[in-house]
Amino acid sequence: MSQVVLINPFEVRPGDEAAALAYWDRAAAHLRGAPGFVSTTLHRALRPDARFPLVNVAAWASAEAFQAAVGSPAFRALTGDEAARFPHHPALYAIVRT
Amino acid sequence: MSQVVLINPFEVRPGDEAAALAYWDRAAAHLRGAPGFVSTTLHRALRPDARFPLVNVAAWASAEAFQAAVGSPAFRALTGDEAARFPHHPALYAIVRT
Repeated sequence: MSQVVLINPFEVRPGDEAAALAYWDRAAAHLRGAPGFVSTTLHRALRPDARFPLVNVAAWASAEAFQAAVGSPAFRALTGDEAARFPHHPALYAIVRT
Repeated sequence: MSQVVLINPFEVRPGDEAAALAYWDRAAAHLRGAPGFVSTTLHRALRPDARFPLVNVAAWASAEAFQAAVGSPAFRALTGDEAARFPHHPALYAIVRT
């Protein structure tokens, strides 16, 4: 198991940004306490017409730790109803060039 | 002017990864020498079926510096022919949560 990077681009409709930030804050508050959480950084596009107005980049101790955290019933209960409002494309990555 | 983050998710078809990495290496080698370049980190998805198999996260001294670098005739000549082969969605971001 080696550290992985979660990158999660969010589609956010005009006018939905405050709700998307509140959604992210709730999810992040939960995940910060999960085993294997390392760090998280939320990026907001400078231009509101960006394809992905919000992008989260987070580090986790392992893919298994991340999957366990987001697969937990508590996390699903927290995010389930609103997840569809902000289509997002999470995937885990390794760093290949710096 | 304050530091900005470029996030650039790439769509890469199966079998095209080596060409995409070579394209990125050529572009990065050029941009590293540009005024205002700070750092760059290329991420490769752990799963080959990820929506965005490669994502670049780079820091630039300012939006103006980044736009000047990628708008230069030299950079356009370097990337123009192949840019369409790997659809990508670059945008500039500010960090709003850590």
